[in-house]
Parts: sequence; structure tokens; C-alpha cells
Amino acid sequence: MLEKTTRMNYLYDFYQSLLTPKQRSYMSLYYLDDYSLGEIAEEYEVSRQAVYDNIKRTEAMLEEYEEKLLLFQKFQDRQKLIKQLKQRTLQQYADDRELLQMIEALEKLE
Amino acid sequence: MLEKTTRMNYLYDFYQSLLTPKQRSYMSLYYLDDYSLGEIAEEYEVSRQAVYDNIKRTEAMLEEYEEKLLLFQKFQDRQKLIKQLKQRTLQQYADDRELLQMIEALEKLE
Repeated sequence: MLEKTTRMNYLYDFYQSLLTPKQRSYMSLYYLDDYSLGEIAEEYEVSRQAVYDNIKRTEAMLEEYEEKLLLFQKFQDRQKLIKQLKQRTLQQYADDRELLQMIEALEKLE
Repeated sequence: MLEKTTRMNYLYDFYQSLLTPKQRSYMSLYYLDDYSLGEIAEEYEVSRQAVYDNIKRTEAMLEEYEEKLLLFQKFQDRQKLIKQLKQRTLQQYADDRELLQMIEALEKLE
């Protein structure tokens, strides 16, 4: 369950610009601010079921975008390689600040 | 003009999975296989104007996706840093094949 939440957080992060403002609001409150469905329903004066349906649809959309664009998958692949690169640099060339800075810039670029 | 074509090729590459099959066919023939609008029209038995309108709409969609997701922009930023990293490695640690392989794996990951 926790892993699923982390995944949804990432997918939201990558694809939020493709969502409608309402979808973004609900997802942000639910996943980032940890509101309950009932609290969101109250805030927006809609039924709990309406909020639930909207969030479920949005989650499905995010998974569809990921199936097509693989942004989260590619991000993970890159981060894994960058981590290896950083480890090797720290082990072998710990004095080379410039090299390390380049790798860290790459790491933060996402 | 050539630069614009290169950009559109990249945008198509990044976002083609979000297009319809027809949009993909027209774009691929026009940008990758260098067909003329007339040749595509003949192939699909539609008017030249219909092909033109479809391609123009698709181009606008690709630019909108780029505005939202910045995949091409981020790709360019990463490639620039990876190039610097590779140059430094080749200059300073040319014997370190493993380090170079990691960087090249990163370069090809896109």
C-alpha cells in the first residue's frame, strides 16, 4: 500500500501538467496533503463518492500516461546509473570536485 | 527551416505515443520519410488540404505537450551535462573503461 502511494506520488509529479485543475486539486490534497476523501468532499461541497470517482479516474489516467511515455521508468533507470557513477567517483576520484559537481548537477536535473 | 524540422522530429519522437494512429502515419511520412503533402494525400485518398490541416494540428499538439512536459528541453539539458562529463573523463581518466561505460550507458538511455 505504501509503495503504491509512492508510485502515485511520482506519477502525479511527472504528469500533473496534463491534468485538469480540479484533478490536480483533488490529487494534491489526497496524496500530498494526506486529506481523507471525506475532507476533500467537504472542502469542495461535493459527495464523497464524486471525489472517490474523480481520483480513481485520475489514477487510471496517470497509469495510462506512464504506459505511453515511461517517464517514471526512465527516471528510475537514469537515477540508478547516476548513483553508480557517483559511487565510483567517490571511491576513485574523491578529490575531483568538478567531476562530482557535474554528476550531482545531472542527479538534480530531473 | 531545417532547425524547425529537427525540432519537430524530436518532438514527434518524444510524444508520438500520445497521438492517434492517423496522426502518427501522416507525421511519420511527412517528417521521417520526406513525403510531400500531395503524396500523402494520394496514398490516403484524401485532399491535400486535409493532410495539411491534420499535420498543422498535430504540430500544435506536440508543441503544447512540450510546453507542459518539457521532455525535449530536459533531454537537451541532460545531454549537455553528459557530454561535459564524458569530455572530462576522456581527458583525465581515459584508462577507466568502467567509468566511461557508465557515462555512455547514461547517454544512450534516452
